[in-house]
Amino acid sequence: MRSIITLITDFGTADGYVGEMKGVILSLVDDVEVVDITHDIPPQDVDRARLTLARVWRRFPKGTIHVVVVDPGVGSTRNALAVSSDDRFLVGPDNGVLSPALLTRRAQVIELPVPPTAAATFHGRDLFAPAAAALARGESLDSLGVPAREPIIRRTPEAQRAADGSVVGEIIAVDRFGNAVTNLIALRGGVVEVNGTTVPIRRVYAEVEPGAPVAVVGSTGFVEIAVRDGDAACVLGLARGMAVTLRTILSAQ
Amino acid sequence: MRSIITLITDFGTADGYVGEMKGVILSLVDDVEVVDITHDIPPQDVDRARLTLARVWRRFPKGTIHVVVVDPGVGSTRNALAVSSDDRFLVGPDNGVLSPALLTRRAQVIELPVPPTAAATFHGRDLFAPAAAALARGESLDSLGVPAREPIIRRTPEAQRAADGSVVGEIIAVDRFGNAVTNLIALRGGVVEVNGTTVPIRRVYAEVEPGAPVAVVGSTGFVEIAVRDGDAACVLGLARGMAVTLRTILSAQ
Amino acid sequence: MRSIITLITDFGTADGYVGEMKGVILSLVDDVEVVDITHDIPPQDVDRARLTLARVWRRFPKGTIHVVVVDPGVGSTRNALAVSSDDRFLVGPDNGVLSPALLTRRAQVIELPVPPTAAATFHGRDLFAPAAAALARGESLDSLGVPAREPIIRRTPEAQRAADGSVVGEIIAVDRFGNAVTNLIALRGGVVEVNGTTVPIRRVYAEVEPGAPVAVVGSTGFVEIAVRDGDAACVLGLARGMAVTLRTILSAQ
Repeated sequence: MRSIITLITDFGTADGYVGEMKGVILSLVDDVEVVDITHDIPPQDVDRARLTLARVWRRFPKGTIHVVVVDPGVGSTRNALAVSSDDRFLVGPDNGVLSPALLTRRAQVIELPVPPTAAATFHGRDLFAPAAAALARGESLDSLGVPAREPIIRRTPEAQRAADGSVVGEIIAVDRFGNAVTNLIALRGGVVEVNGTTVPIRRVYAEVEPGAPVAVVGSTGFVEIAVRDGDAACVLGLARGMAVTLRTILSAQ
Repeated sequence: MRSIITLITDFGTADGYVGEMKGVILSLVDDVEVVDITHDIPPQDVDRARLTLARVWRRFPKGTIHVVVVDPGVGSTRNALAVSSDDRFLVGPDNGVLSPALLTRRAQVIELPVPPTAAATFHGRDLFAPAAAALARGESLDSLGVPAREPIIRRTPEAQRAADGSVVGEIIAVDRFGNAVTNLIALRGGVVEVNGTTVPIRRVYAEVEPGAPVAVVGSTGFVEIAVRDGDAACVLGLARGMAVTLRTILSAQ
Repeated sequence: MRSIITLITDFGTADGYVGEMKGVILSLVDDVEVVDITHDIPPQDVDRARLTLARVWRRFPKGTIHVVVVDPGVGSTRNALAVSSDDRFLVGPDNGVLSPALLTRRAQVIELPVPPTAAATFHGRDLFAPAAAALARGESLDSLGVPAREPIIRRTPEAQRAADGSVVGEIIAVDRFGNAVTNLIALRGGVVEVNGTTVPIRRVYAEVEPGAPVAVVGSTGFVEIAVRDGDAACVLGLARGMAVTLRTILSAQ
């Protein structure tokens, strides 16, 4: 049975860091499929990587090993983790980037020792790739280290209900299309207000004219703010962290 | 026999959309090779994706399944297609992006139903990836839907012969190197005129000095305008859609 | 036994050139794993590709075939090479990009003939991909051409010891994080001076405050100049080729 190891990094590819990791993995495991999720996480953007991991990790078959290396603290005293969660494995730094897999009921979390020969600037190559390879070869999670105590958890902030019945959330990510993903859940339509613009919630982009703002329930279940055939972040001046207010009382409009 | 599924999207990779598609495919098919063609099509640029597909689809082995998701109309009433053409399969939206495979003599085109649970904004994950997986598992094209009527075809515009014997075409793409790909076919040398510059047609870039403009017959058979060791689009001010005139009468120059 | 073919190019992916190469390889070899190292080498930057290759080529298993296509001279009289070195194979243009593998003791270097049907602008597809496929199918290096005479070697410049005991080197690359990789080797700490800034050498980034400059011994053994949690190239105004002076006498500071 072929193992699957996926990679999420902020390394880009041109410098060869990802190439080194792939070489290490393929040298240590005979029958493995290395799958690129992304190497274009903005440098050191732990939250962006966390959200990307949240989207993908359970879409892969059971037994998949996800390697996540967005690691501003490399070489410091931050811990390194290997995780078993929901029948998948994950390895990465203990900076919250693995949180989506740490929040399941039966997550098992191991602290990985740093090999004495590891370069202080490149644990992706010298620690995380070998740990993933060990799991792909069938070594047990337990054998890789000792149980971790209180791994760091980072959470997407939760929207709050205001006194007037509206719900106030925020933009948690802007995607490649300029769509702004919020932390709002809309069950019955309505409007969202963001940066001075009121945007109607519709089922699909095509319910508004090209160039018009529209909010839809995106593929993760959260409200996303878009401009049909356009770039909402650019047109509406949106950025991560900006407040967004959901008003369902106007859903009849 | 291992199946091959290729991916052409405008998703970038950082948001995890491509990762989700890969996870879906690998969860549904045991023995498949997922091959990245590109995820860097400019957002919603159907013509760029169509030209990229035209270059690559027949280079792959028979039986390959190409998934093309550049889909500004996702969630609207636009159809979704699965195609058998020249012994390869293709899936993607009915917006012209699959045209290169629709223009063969025996293309068979099926209209895919949208699963009721599909997210209205992400048919790549919920419709096209599962359809590709079904084909990879050996399900027949017919079993996936009903015959499509009049799928949308987009064509590269054809160059026109002018009264003075010249041929007037246009720039259909600018590539990463700044080379401008035209729709002109040159059999006997000559020059092309573009944006006020007259550019000689040569066999290879190296026949002119570094920094000089040169036109060559590119790897798809069309005339391309380059600057040796430079960026023609930048140096000569070239862009997609710009007119280009081919004069063969001057081929002796 | 599954073969591994890796790709290093400056093609980007959107234009489909890499897709064509993958299609050619997969059409010619049944059981091969095509591994992307990078397609984001800056256009025609032979030295950047050479340094990336230097990092990765020996990390891969014996028998791996590395294809490197950064080829400003395509179609000219520059030679095309296939190399056996340290139990790996490499193919690419004879412009110095393969130097890391040419400098081993027993490198064997073959000059590849250009197929008469090869497009003058795309040897990646018509020459190098087929040569890699031939090696993956088990054809011998000898069978692919004739021994090459004096392939072009490009070297990273060596740092020089100055009269005052300092060592003067230069920045050989700036990576995605803005870290500047130098050609200096530091055994005992000290400081480096670059662009008017004096930067202490530490074991890890975390030994200085966020935002402060710090030099560390990077994962290839060379001194790298960074800014903790920042972009050193941007903050300190660093660029490739800039002089860097290493003073070990100050290592006690």
